[in-house]
Amino acid sequence: MKIAVAQNNYHIGNFESNFKKIQDSIQCARSGKCDLVIFSELSVCGYPPRDFLEFSDFINRCDEVIQKIADEAKDIAVIVGSPSRNPRLEGKDLFNSAYFIENGKVEKVIHKALLPTYDIFDEYRYFEPNHDFHVVQFRDKKIALSVCEDIWNVGNENPLYTICPVDELMREQPDFIVNISASPFDYEQTEKRLRVLRANVARYKLPLFYVNHVGAQTDLIFDGGSIVMNAAGKVYDELPYFEETYREYDLNDLTASAKSQKEDKAIILPKIQKIHDALVLGIKDYFGKLGFQKAILGLSGGIDSAVVLVLAARALGKENVLPVLMPSEFSSEHSISDSVELAKRLGVMHEILPIKKVYDASLEALKPVFEGTPFNIAEENLQARIRANFLMACTNKHKYILLNTSNKSEAAVGYGTLYGDMCGGLSVIGDVYKTEVYELAHYINKDAELIPNNIITKAPSAELRPNQKDSDSLPEYPILDKLLYQYIEKRQGPKELVQMGFNKSLVDRVLRMVNINEFKRHQTPPILRVSPKAFGMGRRMPIVGKYLS
Amino acid sequence: MKIAVAQNNYHIGNFESNFKKIQDSIQCARSGKCDLVIFSELSVCGYPPRDFLEFSDFINRCDEVIQKIADEAKDIAVIVGSPSRNPRLEGKDLFNSAYFIENGKVEKVIHKALLPTYDIFDEYRYFEPNHDFHVVQFRDKKIALSVCEDIWNVGNENPLYTICPVDELMREQPDFIVNISASPFDYEQTEKRLRVLRANVARYKLPLFYVNHVGAQTDLIFDGGSIVMNAAGKVYDELPYFEETYREYDLNDLTASAKSQKEDKAIILPKIQKIHDALVLGIKDYFGKLGFQKAILGLSGGIDSAVVLVLAARALGKENVLPVLMPSEFSSEHSISDSVELAKRLGVMHEILPIKKVYDASLEALKPVFEGTPFNIAEENLQARIRANFLMACTNKHKYILLNTSNKSEAAVGYGTLYGDMCGGLSVIGDVYKTEVYELAHYINKDAELIPNNIITKAPSAELRPNQKDSDSLPEYPILDKLLYQYIEKRQGPKELVQMGFNKSLVDRVLRMVNINEFKRHQTPPILRVSPKAFGMGRRMPIVGKYLS
Repeated sequence: MKIAVAQNNYHIGNFESNFKKIQDSIQCARSGKCDLVIFSELSVCGYPPRDFLEFSDFINRCDEVIQKIADEAKDIAVIVGSPSRNPRLEGKDLFNSAYFIENGKVEKVIHKALLPTYDIFDEYRYFEPNHDFHVVQFRDKKIALSVCEDIWNVGNENPLYTICPVDELMREQPDFIVNISASPFDYEQTEKRLRVLRANVARYKLPLFYVNHVGAQTDLIFDGGSIVMNAAGKVYDELPYFEETYREYDLNDLTASAKSQKEDKAIILPKIQKIHDALVLGIKDYFGKLGFQKAILGLSGGIDSAVVLVLAARALGKENVLPVLMPSEFSSEHSISDSVELAKRLGVMHEILPIKKVYDASLEALKPVFEGTPFNIAEENLQARIRANFLMACTNKHKYILLNTSNKSEAAVGYGTLYGDMCGGLSVIGDVYKTEVYELAHYINKDAELIPNNIITKAPSAELRPNQKDSDSLPEYPILDKLLYQYIEKRQGPKELVQMGFNKSLVDRVLRMVNINEFKRHQTPPILRVSPKAFGMGRRMPIVGKYLS
Repeated sequence: MKIAVAQNNYHIGNFESNFKKIQDSIQCARSGKCDLVIFSELSVCGYPPRDFLEFSDFINRCDEVIQKIADEAKDIAVIVGSPSRNPRLEGKDLFNSAYFIENGKVEKVIHKALLPTYDIFDEYRYFEPNHDFHVVQFRDKKIALSVCEDIWNVGNENPLYTICPVDELMREQPDFIVNISASPFDYEQTEKRLRVLRANVARYKLPLFYVNHVGAQTDLIFDGGSIVMNAAGKVYDELPYFEETYREYDLNDLTASAKSQKEDKAIILPKIQKIHDALVLGIKDYFGKLGFQKAILGLSGGIDSAVVLVLAARALGKENVLPVLMPSEFSSEHSISDSVELAKRLGVMHEILPIKKVYDASLEALKPVFEGTPFNIAEENLQARIRANFLMACTNKHKYILLNTSNKSEAAVGYGTLYGDMCGGLSVIGDVYKTEVYELAHYINKDAELIPNNIITKAPSAELRPNQKDSDSLPEYPILDKLLYQYIEKRQGPKELVQMGFNKSLVDRVLRMVNINEFKRHQTPPILRVSPKAFGMGRRMPIVGKYLS
């Protein structure tokens, strides 16, 4: 039996393009004389479709595509993901399903049982869980077909769930396991996923086809890395990360490999390389799927905008990126020269738009309100907002998307100007702590000094008043980032943080900064998610609250 | 038996203030010689606490308050809402619970079974559902104690759920029903709620105490309106809407009332009055709970900002509201005179900050980018963003919060400038369609012409280019709003909308406008929710999608 794995990049709601990709892969599989071709979770509509699922029209379109796939697949079997309607009146209206299509018709629809409802996941908002488990009979083989999370409770070891779907399927003695997934990337996820797959195979002693979605959907980046594992628990093949791939496997070879001492082909990439590649894909798909080509961004001379510029040039091509320098009276000389040098090294054009005249005119216009008050955060933010206004004017005039360059440390403590440097269509590094931004810069410079060293080594500054330094307002980033990581990623409270050795007054100050700035994060652009806990849909905090604040 | 109902305004995470309110009500109840006092759902921590629930420290603080309440309640019984830990390893970590406290200790903890996970609700994200149903024995009475949604599946008629908690409790023959709720307001909710309460009493023939939360938590407005119903299904008493109230009832009187022909005391308020009162409370609590006094807003001469100004003055006091007029070369004469007249009638100060010089300086500064291009949306947005910059400069200088004045029709079709008129700490009428804004204006003017008639009767215009009218870019509002309502509130697809009689090309155009502007709504301020489907947490749409767009 020959089985094809299609790791495709779908687009939410773009039924035409999704069907085309599925159709092309089916044609490849047919040419390759495959018996079966497997697609990822909700491939028909893209994942996550969110509240589009509440539109009956949307589900009808999914059903139409399923019918078109069935028409396409008269001589080959297909496993493809799509929502299906719950025929019972009780419970949620839909299932998250894997369709098994054979001989030009839907032979079986298998529903997902474990519905992730945490972090960025809202599946129980839409889907009814499955309680009725059966394998799929395909010729002389029985397939344990499952959807994503269903293999994540091996032997009931996941405290979130009370049933183990694959255990249930084992009663019917399947020959191999298929799991169709849309498992979003974070820098820990690839290792976690591999552990879970190994645990499944260790328990069930069966070959496993794990087919993951690849491609970014706004903030969520799906990294692919689909895996074929033999019954001995060795990775027989792993598909590349962050790109579309199609591959074919002979089930006999896979079975035979379990008896030989074949090497394990698991791909382990360094954390910072994964983040780099994920961000490049995230930018590329955001623009591509929205139908835009060109990015604009403010280039300050600091490390954040430098790194974002490089990532954008890699994602979109250097001809499609315009950095804009917007010096003020508080800008240092090197801010300009370092920025110009970076643009030159990258081979990108740049624009210089000084803000001084508009800043002066604004102060003049605001006299009735400002008169007699000392220079404070109002004047600082004014500059940042004039820059944002310039950048947005360019986007409106020439169809750019503005890239936001705030990092996670700033976003966490609210060290940024709402409607100023917090603007943009997409936040590229809003899930990357400042110390990780440095790592990214070093990774980018690993072969040659693309980002001028002076940008990396200078002390971070917002340059909104004379001789300002980030360290005037914030703890040093290595300490701040460790503390933020424990609070945000690990949900440690103030007592635990002090027990870990953080200074109590620092803990109180930083936690308060994080919590009182929820109102700012509420209005930020979508942030490319690369960590297990990013700001955005995966972290839902009250704005009007009074806790550690 | 004497029972007190405490309809209080809690603040998420503000354990000190929440405990103080609970303590005060307990003292009232003790003075009133009550046997039992009932508080609303999650009153200890405020509702909805969202991801604060993932912090062990947060749950510990809830437990501490429960202990303090128990210490306070040595001579009176208390029913109060708080999260409780799930002792089992499997399933979610918490329950959403009603604590029954008697003789100074927690006698029983009843868990919520039906966990709303739709629209603005995410309860299954946090809570494990209850499966084990028992009444609470209190002296010679048995109480069917339930939490919010648990009474919303009367006789299994709600298609969302498969069990009916109150049916389960009936096996133990309770004497009366208590339901503690945090049921957010929308203009349909009060009637729906009353129908559900009546259906419960019709089925179980028992008196019912329904205790609801009152007060706003950012976007969500809880309207109170707690109800005591006798076994005959008559409303024995209904607490006021949108304000804190404490009342006492004698169970014997309540029982007796079911046998007499007592009148039903249900309060039915007109829709537009409810929306008005809800918005006033929403503004008041947003400021009060964040510790701010003063609001600023741009006053354009149009109806939206006029209505918001009146609502803000009613919520915060006229001395705490500053409207700012920011005329440009495209502003009509009446924009200024109408605005000044409104401020005068309201008795509020106003500020005039013309934008022309900054606009001209900006065009000059942007010449390298704008040169040779015709006037387009870039110049329009530039003006809106200069105004936003002025307003934000005032907030930063003098500790105002900027009120956003966009209406729901504009927000839906993206007729607004991101980082311009879409700015603000809070969107007051972002869930009110333009046609409803007119109704609000007429309601405000019902006794006297507070809002000058010219503001109400003039044709809506953004005044960002010569002789601009909303109707140049948008369908007439009465048609647009009907279409938007069917698409947004009722989730009707294009086919259904055409079947309803809407013009097909209009449907395609409007649905496309709604869907391609998701990126703008992603960055808007929290919107006070008054409809059953508001933009915000209750409507989760992909930004990068391709569906009806």
